[in-house]
Amino acid sequence: MKTGLWLIGARGSVAVTSMIGALAIRAGLAEPTGCVLESPELRSDALPGIGDLVFGGHDIVSTPLEKKAATLAEAGIVPGRLATAVQDVLLGIEHDVRPLPVAATQGETARAIGADLGRFRSRHRLDRIVVINVSTTEPAPPPHPAHADLAALRAALEGQEPVLPPSALAAYAALSAGCPYVDFTPSTGARLPALDTLARERGLPYGGHDGKTGETLVKSVLAPMFAQRNLKVRTWSGINLLGGGDGANLAEPAANAAKAASKQRVLPETLGYVPQGDTRIDFVADLGDFKTAWDLVTFDGFLGTRMRVEFTWHGCDSALAAPLILDLARLTAAAHRAGRTGPLTELAFFFKDPLGSVPHALAEQWRALRAAVEAYGTASTPR
Amino acid sequence: MKTGLWLIGARGSVAVTSMIGALAIRAGLAEPTGCVLESPELRSDALPGIGDLVFGGHDIVSTPLEKKAATLAEAGIVPGRLATAVQDVLLGIEHDVRPLPVAATQGETARAIGADLGRFRSRHRLDRIVVINVSTTEPAPPPHPAHADLAALRAALEGQEPVLPPSALAAYAALSAGCPYVDFTPSTGARLPALDTLARERGLPYGGHDGKTGETLVKSVLAPMFAQRNLKVRTWSGINLLGGGDGANLAEPAANAAKAASKQRVLPETLGYVPQGDTRIDFVADLGDFKTAWDLVTFDGFLGTRMRVEFTWHGCDSALAAPLILDLARLTAAAHRAGRTGPLTELAFFFKDPLGSVPHALAEQWRALRAAVEAYGTASTPR
Amino acid sequence: MKTGLWLIGARGSVAVTSMIGALAIRAGLAEPTGCVLESPELRSDALPGIGDLVFGGHDIVSTPLEKKAATLAEAGIVPGRLATAVQDVLLGIEHDVRPLPVAATQGETARAIGADLGRFRSRHRLDRIVVINVSTTEPAPPPHPAHADLAALRAALEGQEPVLPPSALAAYAALSAGCPYVDFTPSTGARLPALDTLARERGLPYGGHDGKTGETLVKSVLAPMFAQRNLKVRTWSGINLLGGGDGANLAEPAANAAKAASKQRVLPETLGYVPQGDTRIDFVADLGDFKTAWDLVTFDGFLGTRMRVEFTWHGCDSALAAPLILDLARLTAAAHRAGRTGPLTELAFFFKDPLGSVPHALAEQWRALRAAVEAYGTASTPR
Amino acid sequence: MKTGLWLIGARGSVAVTSMIGALAIRAGLAEPTGCVLESPELRSDALPGIGDLVFGGHDIVSTPLEKKAATLAEAGIVPGRLATAVQDVLLGIEHDVRPLPVAATQGETARAIGADLGRFRSRHRLDRIVVINVSTTEPAPPPHPAHADLAALRAALEGQEPVLPPSALAAYAALSAGCPYVDFTPSTGARLPALDTLARERGLPYGGHDGKTGETLVKSVLAPMFAQRNLKVRTWSGINLLGGGDGANLAEPAANAAKAASKQRVLPETLGYVPQGDTRIDFVADLGDFKTAWDLVTFDGFLGTRMRVEFTWHGCDSALAAPLILDLARLTAAAHRAGRTGPLTELAFFFKDPLGSVPHALAEQWRALRAAVEAYGTASTPR
Ligand SMILES: NC(=O)c1ccc[n+]([C@@H]2O[C@H](COP(=O)([O-])OP(=O)(O)OC[C@H]3O[C@@H](n4cnc5c(N)ncnc54)[C@H](O)[C@@H]3O)[C@@H](O)[C@H]2O)c1
Ligand SMILES: NC(=O)c1ccc[n+]([C@@H]2O[C@H](COP(=O)([O-])OP(=O)(O)OC[C@H]3O[C@@H](n4cnc5c(N)ncnc54)[C@H](O)[C@@H]3O)[C@@H](O)[C@H]2O)c1
Ligand SMILES: NC(=O)c1ccc[n+]([C@@H]2O[C@H](COP(=O)([O-])OP(=O)(O)OC[C@H]3O[C@@H](n4cnc5c(N)ncnc54)[C@H](O)[C@@H]3O)[C@@H](O)[C@H]2O)c1
Ligand SMILES: NC(=O)c1ccc[n+]([C@@H]2O[C@H](COP(=O)([O-])OP(=O)(O)OC[C@H]3O[C@@H](n4cnc5c(N)ncnc54)[C@H](O)[C@@H]3O)[C@@H](O)[C@H]2O)c1
Ligand code: NA
Ligand code: NA
Repeated sequence: MKTGLWLIGARGSVAVTSMIGALAIRAGLAEPTGCVLESPELRSDALPGIGDLVFGGHDIVSTPLEKKAATLAEAGIVPGRLATAVQDVLLGIEHDVRPLPVAATQGETARAIGADLGRFRSRHRLDRIVVINVSTTEPAPPPHPAHADLAALRAALEGQEPVLPPSALAAYAALSAGCPYVDFTPSTGARLPALDTLARERGLPYGGHDGKTGETLVKSVLAPMFAQRNLKVRTWSGINLLGGGDGANLAEPAANAAKAASKQRVLPETLGYVPQGDTRIDFVADLGDFKTAWDLVTFDGFLGTRMRVEFTWHGCDSALAAPLILDLARLTAAAHRAGRTGPLTELAFFFKDPLGSVPHALAEQWRALRAAVEAYGTASTPR
Repeated sequence: MKTGLWLIGARGSVAVTSMIGALAIRAGLAEPTGCVLESPELRSDALPGIGDLVFGGHDIVSTPLEKKAATLAEAGIVPGRLATAVQDVLLGIEHDVRPLPVAATQGETARAIGADLGRFRSRHRLDRIVVINVSTTEPAPPPHPAHADLAALRAALEGQEPVLPPSALAAYAALSAGCPYVDFTPSTGARLPALDTLARERGLPYGGHDGKTGETLVKSVLAPMFAQRNLKVRTWSGINLLGGGDGANLAEPAANAAKAASKQRVLPETLGYVPQGDTRIDFVADLGDFKTAWDLVTFDGFLGTRMRVEFTWHGCDSALAAPLILDLARLTAAAHRAGRTGPLTELAFFFKDPLGSVPHALAEQWRALRAAVEAYGTASTPR
Repeated sequence: MKTGLWLIGARGSVAVTSMIGALAIRAGLAEPTGCVLESPELRSDALPGIGDLVFGGHDIVSTPLEKKAATLAEAGIVPGRLATAVQDVLLGIEHDVRPLPVAATQGETARAIGADLGRFRSRHRLDRIVVINVSTTEPAPPPHPAHADLAALRAALEGQEPVLPPSALAAYAALSAGCPYVDFTPSTGARLPALDTLARERGLPYGGHDGKTGETLVKSVLAPMFAQRNLKVRTWSGINLLGGGDGANLAEPAANAAKAASKQRVLPETLGYVPQGDTRIDFVADLGDFKTAWDLVTFDGFLGTRMRVEFTWHGCDSALAAPLILDLARLTAAAHRAGRTGPLTELAFFFKDPLGSVPHALAEQWRALRAAVEAYGTASTPR
Repeated sequence: MKTGLWLIGARGSVAVTSMIGALAIRAGLAEPTGCVLESPELRSDALPGIGDLVFGGHDIVSTPLEKKAATLAEAGIVPGRLATAVQDVLLGIEHDVRPLPVAATQGETARAIGADLGRFRSRHRLDRIVVINVSTTEPAPPPHPAHADLAALRAALEGQEPVLPPSALAAYAALSAGCPYVDFTPSTGARLPALDTLARERGLPYGGHDGKTGETLVKSVLAPMFAQRNLKVRTWSGINLLGGGDGANLAEPAANAAKAASKQRVLPETLGYVPQGDTRIDFVADLGDFKTAWDLVTFDGFLGTRMRVEFTWHGCDSALAAPLILDLARLTAAAHRAGRTGPLTELAFFFKDPLGSVPHALAEQWRALRAAVEAYGTASTPR
């Protein structure tokens, strides 16, 4: 099951960390720690192996992968010895990491993206390609009537005015080229009615949004705990301090707002009400990719007695995200093979702001994921 | 479904807080916050209501309940206005809180305990009595051959030498008197083969051990999170600072050891391995019943990158425990009514060190509990 | 040494807590915990006693002091029994808490304020009055040329257009009436060249700004520690979560900015450089006056090894501020008596944003304070 | 001022980190971060430079310095590039790191130690040698009458039975050989009346005990803050989690007790009373040299309102200790040159458990240190 993994933002931290990791695991130099599909309960023949993944992608910068790998090693995100060990193989991937096409109309750009995907598929004789967006988070786009209607969208894309934000254009291009699309960022991606129509028309699955790698992950187990114990959460406040490329971008108010909203959604969904308090994201360049998040939760116990819990999370964002990219590629490939179309609600386990009407408690998301992996196995027909 | 709730340690903090709370809720003066069975998903006609509970119990001290209530109010464990409001009703309970019988042999003591239970039952025309141990934690008893054999135990109890620790004697007496028994402490309770035989012989259910109210509760959601994300926990260390009666007793090394062991069990059970690190319990008188627990977890992410999470829990122990006592009484009564015998594994949700081979992840324990509540409803036949 | 303590914002939390405390201490019902001048090293005959303070003030609301006291007790800021015990004496203070005068011109308003001060002085035969501003924090005012010139200011005050923010008008009125003025808030207060001229002209001392009661207090001992150990602080980020009247006001961006700036000043002043990171203030109504602040400091050790310290402060803001109000009144009275004029730099110990070129390390501020108290003793001539 | 720095425990983490650092700073490869004497306020010509230090020492293991350096680099305690850069110079030091002599009597051992010091002095034509103990912490020795009397001690040392623990024997040998001695560990060192007599007889200074590098450092600024604000500390509890060689040794109850006692001393000394609570040290191998300490302080504010502060310190112990070793060597050499004899109380800034009747607040210790550095300058006469 040779599977292409086409990354939008292929020269970024998450992307390159996932490449180094996959190559190191394949070479037997590292354990697949953090790869959810490698835990005993989820291992399945219905999934392509990590070794079956072939990397390619688009980016708007041209930093060599090797140089990015060195930067990641220096920052302590990946071990230096692994960055060095996979250097040659990484060089091989360079051919498949293309500059993002820019054309006169968005329609043309989409066709150029599709052409890149086609070349990638044939060069490597891939069974399928999964496109995953790990590029810079965009601000929410202004609404446009064509977002809700596929025919109108197709027409609008041929005009001079851009109608889709880059993430949605990538989704449009991927789906038009027969490739499932997953958005790891909080950007729009495939989350437009017209793109849902397109996915269904083409019999393709899609997934998102916003990888759940730190504070929100902890929230998604703590909030259900309060709910199940019938304890009343009064306030939940948090702050995320981070540097790095992602942090710099999130310092922009619009991107920040998109992200912060995505981070709070788990509370009403699991508690059934909205406690007071906000989640902040603060850019502190010097912290780099090592994020520190602090949350304070105050709650009422029996007879109104006030109690509190606070936690500090200190994690390396790219190292938390990268193994999930491998998981998502493998799962989406298997879902596609099993004939699934539309939003993949079983991927809620991976996202802060999952698609569809899904559980937000991590434990339930895990069960949904396990059931889906089993179902892929049953549905799969040899190819 | 008039249900007796007989508390061993009835003049202690947990016991009296549960009484004040039940009376205040019944009187419409307080919400049932922290009562698990009052959350929408678990409400069921198969359970006795909080208002159906009738309180009684044993203790070795004679502090009036009213005085204890005032102490609890002063310490901020219950609101002063509630302690005052239920004063009269609490006075009424005094008749049913008896000094723990002391007799020449443990057999005789057990019969005296049984007689107290009998009188309680008839005075209030109770459908059934659930006995719950909330007395001071004991050290683990020395092993004795009679612990494994009911006939030998019955014989030994008639000798001069004590053969059972107080909690197990209470369990023996309760079961012999036809009452289900639950241990909220880490003490021995019904956890002896001979007592299991007795429970089955009498067709009675029993439950335990060690109410899960703070640090271990958080552990039981965080540890599964690491497991499901396939992150490798390297160390998990914790310290619990608490005063109060329970804290003073836990300052004794033997009781401390019993408790600390109980607190770590969740890690191997959910992770599949034992990370480095210990859990400490430190007595700091001035903190009273407001416990502060701090835990540090260090873990490996992708490619071995080191990360950490720490949390501080600041909770009022008695206020966390009391509503669970009400839940356990109601559940055990319903289980008894539904004909259940032997260890109630569905109560794992409530305990640090649950009986039987059960899940240790809170979310799974919650599902088992919900399934059990549904089953009680189906099985129940009016009695 | 009968000393009037005239509070701008006399019906607010800080003001009323300081009244309750002074009355309770005077009645022997409470210890002077938190009163700096009551520590053995600072006790001095040169200072008026807590019992020598007579309370009065202005406010723009009319909530009875007794009602405010009940609210403070309910919120756990002062013990209920003390609020009740001083009820009658508090009622006596009502006569001296006047509505803030409002007149056609600011000049007229200032004269009306002065008249209130005069009546207060004669009614109680006071040796002197210290005016302290504990009213709501204002946004920074727009600059005005009259701020720098006393004659121009006097002229401008008789015009229709307001030229001073309320805190500066209060300072002008106090100084004009011969009363020293202290600003416990970050508002403008006496911090204008024209008012400095006025103070010197009248031979009066003044002080400020912004009481140092929580996170900044801790900063003022931690930052010098890093400096003295020659450790390089790379980032210092913090968040303050608070509700209460002050919190609600600080939710306004302009007031928030004034406060946040004041909170960071200690870092460059003690470290000699500005680390990355910001201090946030977030309003969370439910937390009331109990503020939680969290700070993360990352620093370089020997050979660049990265280290970190984080702290969580959980304090009751009004209870931290109130004893300092008593201290400031007593110190300023003694300074006045000792003939001091202009900015009281020895009060830096109490402020986040102290006047003048002063040390910002708490330990040095403490020494300056101790030296000043000694000097007051020497300078004092009986009156 | 060519100064020998003779380290007892010269192959341990602190020792080798201090060597690598000194060599790297000398070579212009690293900044002297963490070296107190390099801060602008303390720089002085009366002190030997870091470049004037010549390393030697004793150890009981024979791990090559180069190998230890590699281990330290791998553990992230020193940067790999520095460990590599100083490799050759480190090799040169090997000649001066000798196996600890073992002889028939302790007297003979002491003479052999003295002989090693003599050879070190002449080989490098040193002006003086400072001996610093950075070896494994010992349990407290049993008392012995000869500890109080120098003549008795000299006699006892010639007997078969050991009379001094290793640290005190090293101090005896150093002082006898005319070398000042400093103990960075909580071991006995020169802290015996007989050794004080010896130091004075020989006109030598000595110093100690127990380097202050983490939790106690923070305590020594926080505790004075509470005292100066007249806030009443009720409880102060802490836990230190660490691995590494030092951690492993501290897992031994006797060494642990010595250390824990040393860590709490700052509280009564600065507060004037002993709050409730203990300090724990827990060995967690996997944490290595990166210690995490957590402290909870609860305190009373005005009118008894309860408040709390907690802090988490995450530091690299050897990287915190190493620069202080360089400082101590330079200071002690200057003190010796200035003719100081007996305990160097001005070194209190560096120690958890300083010698003599000295201030325990860090700020006051800093002032004492600064004054001493100035005095060395004045007293110094070229030699
Ligand atoms: N790391 C995590 O834990 C995590 C979790 C959730 C979401 N995310 C999201 O993942 C994304 C990537 O994070 P990162 O840390 O790798 O950021 P990064 O800044 O290192 O990488 C982003 C890459 O995207 C490229 N890019 C920007 N615009 C592009 C476009 N229009 N087309 C193609 N490439 C484009 C950039 O040049 C850059 O190479 C971010 O949006 C982030 O919010 C990350
Ligand atoms: N509060 C919690 O969160 C929590 C959680 C888990 C377990 N527990 C356990 O619950 C128990 C009660 O806690 P608490 O805080 O109420 O303690 P407590 O000290 O306030 O009360 C214990 C009571 O038991 C009585 N007692 C002692 N020995 C007895 C005996 N042999 N027979 C009858 N009564 C006896 C004592 O006199 C006292 O009144 C403890 O064992 C504790 O470890 C409490
Ligand atoms: N509590 C602390 O720890 C602390 C520390 C530093 C500074 N402060 C400052 O102290 C001030 C008081 O805090 P608080 O918690 O008591 O606030 P609060 O809201 O309880 O009280 C403020 C009072 O000022 C009154 N007021 C508003 N405008 C006025 C005016 N123009 N003239 C007279 N009165 C006026 C209000 O009606 C109110 O009664 C705030 O500015 C706060 O920022 C407090
Ligand atoms: N690192 C810190 O922050 C810090 C702070 C205060 C005190 N200390 C103390 O410093 C000492 C050294 O710490 P470390 O982390 O380097 O420990 P370490 O275990 O790495 O090194 C100790 C060295 O001492 C050697 N040694 C043992 N007994 C000896 C003896 N009798 N004579 C000569 N050498 C002997 C050992 O072989 C080892 O090489 C410890 O006692 C520790 O408690 C360290
Ligand atoms: Na914390
Ligand atoms: Na923390």
